[in-house]
Amino acid sequence: MTPKPDPVQPADAEARALARSLLGATHAALSWLDVETGHPSISRIAFGLCPQGMPLTLISGLAPHLAALKADARCSLMVGEVGAKGDPLTHPRLMIRARATFVAPDDPARPELRAHWLKGHPKAALYVDFPDFAFVRLIPESALLNGGFARAFRLTPQDLAG
Amino acid sequence: MTPKPDPVQPADAEARALARSLLGATHAALSWLDVETGHPSISRIAFGLCPQGMPLTLISGLAPHLAALKADARCSLMVGEVGAKGDPLTHPRLMIRARATFVAPDDPARPELRAHWLKGHPKAALYVDFPDFAFVRLIPESALLNGGFARAFRLTPQDLAG
Repeated sequence: MTPKPDPVQPADAEARALARSLLGATHAALSWLDVETGHPSISRIAFGLCPQGMPLTLISGLAPHLAALKADARCSLMVGEVGAKGDPLTHPRLMIRARATFVAPDDPARPELRAHWLKGHPKAALYVDFPDFAFVRLIPESALLNGGFARAFRLTPQDLAG
Repeated sequence: MTPKPDPVQPADAEARALARSLLGATHAALSWLDVETGHPSISRIAFGLCPQGMPLTLISGLAPHLAALKADARCSLMVGEVGAKGDPLTHPRLMIRARATFVAPDDPARPELRAHWLKGHPKAALYVDFPDFAFVRLIPESALLNGGFARAFRLTPQDLAG
């Protein structure tokens, strides 16, 4: 028997460009672990990029994933909208395996992150400085781009940085 | 000190109706555990309901979550689209904590599931009977409905059944 071919290809220039365009999203789905049970859990998060082009979110203290990411930083995020037409599984989406790193209120990088975030999320000005909100970097470890059936690409953090 | 009030309310009739309408989705985001590392992972899945109104998906053998759910049935799914206007976090979404149960090819319930699925996903007729595709029931354990800031409701599997 011949081995089953790997359906996932290394990224090419087109895949990298598509991934970068999907990173322009303002929201994402986040996969994280329940603190008590370890059950894989899911939330919608606000999404943006830091000035260096890497994934960032702003989390409310009321969100269950805030405490969860403090306890276990492992997470994954997905960006890419489903359009109005056709099979939803043919619309491109990017899945990033990541680790969450909290930005402390007195982190010297925070003012720049905050200003950059508010350009893409102007309504966040209402709550960005509430004491229970936190910026969290989602540091990529690896990524998978799915551009539809039989069009899957593996991406490195360097591929995402463009 | 008084205890922090629980921001999540028990479901009322309006919350149950909203949850049921969100369950009309044809796709969802799925949170699952990587087989080798236990890292929380994420995929887009085809989504529908079984004839009894409970969550169902059809998974390709090429999808990484197929082997993962066979190894650990714990998962969560999220349904609810983000509209074109306003803050993405104000759009309603439903998160369901679930366990995956595979439907065997010779399961007596499969013909009815298959016929029901194809009504909502007619393009799946092209691949539904491929030997590496499987129907998987996502049996709810609990759910959280988020209808926007400060509008969160806890739902039971009975609430979802309508």
